[in-house]
Amino acid sequence: MKFVATLALAAAAFALASPASAQSFQKPEDAIKYRQGAFRVLGAHFGALGAMANGKAPFDAQAAARHADVIALVSHLPWAGFGPGTEKGENTRAKPAIWTEQAKFKEKAENMQEAVAKLAAAAKTGSLENLKAAFGPAGKSCKACHDDFRREL
Amino acid sequence: MKFVATLALAAAAFALASPASAQSFQKPEDAIKYRQGAFRVLGAHFGALGAMANGKAPFDAQAAARHADVIALVSHLPWAGFGPGTEKGENTRAKPAIWTEQAKFKEKAENMQEAVAKLAAAAKTGSLENLKAAFGPAGKSCKACHDDFRREL
Repeated sequence: MKFVATLALAAAAFALASPASAQSFQKPEDAIKYRQGAFRVLGAHFGALGAMANGKAPFDAQAAARHADVIALVSHLPWAGFGPGTEKGENTRAKPAIWTEQAKFKEKAENMQEAVAKLAAAAKTGSLENLKAAFGPAGKSCKACHDDFRREL
Repeated sequence: MKFVATLALAAAAFALASPASAQSFQKPEDAIKYRQGAFRVLGAHFGALGAMANGKAPFDAQAAARHADVIALVSHLPWAGFGPGTEKGENTRAKPAIWTEQAKFKEKAENMQEAVAKLAAAAKTGSLENLKAAFGPAGKSCKACHDDFRREL
C-alpha cells in the first residue's frame, strides 16, 4: 500500500499549494476540453468509488484508496480551465454564474476539495464504514456546485 | 516546493503499482470518454510544459515541476479505458491495432510512463537545460504510440 500512502501525501500537499497553476491554452475550446477532461476523470473515479461505498461493487480497500487519491489530486485541476473567454462554447454545461459569482464558485470548489481530501483519508483507513461516512459529504459537495453552476445540455 | 517533492514520490510509487486498477464503467462510451479525458489533461499539461521547454513561454521552475508531476501521475490513468468492448465508438481515434497488438501497445505505454517519470525528475531539478533534455524523449514516447495506435478523425 506504499503507493497509496505517498499519493495521500501528495494530495494533502497539493491542497496547500496554489489551486491552479497558470495553464497556457491556445484557444478557449482547449481550456473547455481540458476542464471537461479533468471532470470526466474525476467523475469516473468517483463513480467507481461510489459503487463500493453503496454496495454495488465489492469493496477493495486498495482500489478504493487509489480512486480516492486520484480524486483528491484531480480535484485541483479543472479550475485552470475556467479562465476569461471560456464562458462560451459548444457543449459546455458551465453556467454564466461561474463568471459572475466567482467567489461563490471558488468557495464551492474549495468545499469539494476539502471533502474529497477527507474522503481520501477515510479510504486510506481501509474501513468500508469510514469510506461510506465520508462519501456522502463528498457527493454532496459535488452536487452543491453542480446545482448552482452546471446546466443540463 | 514541498508539494512537488511529494508528488514526485507519488508518481514514482504509482509507477511501481499495477498500471490500471479495475475501473467500473457502465457503458463502453463512458470508458472512451474517460480515456479521452485523461489524455486531454495529459496533453494540456504536456503542452504547457513544452512551451517552457521550447522557449515559447517563460520558464517557471515550480510550475514546470507541477506540470511534469501531473503528467507523470496521469500517465497511469487512461489505460483502464481501453477494456474489451471499447474498440468502437463515435469520435474515437483509437486504432483497432490497440486490441490486436496489446503487447506492443502496453510496451509503448510503459515507455511513455518511464519517459515522463524521467521528465518529472528533470523538472524537479529546477534546471531549464535538464527539462529540455528530458522533454524530447518524452515527446517522442508520446508520438511513437500515436503513430501506431492513433488515427486522425
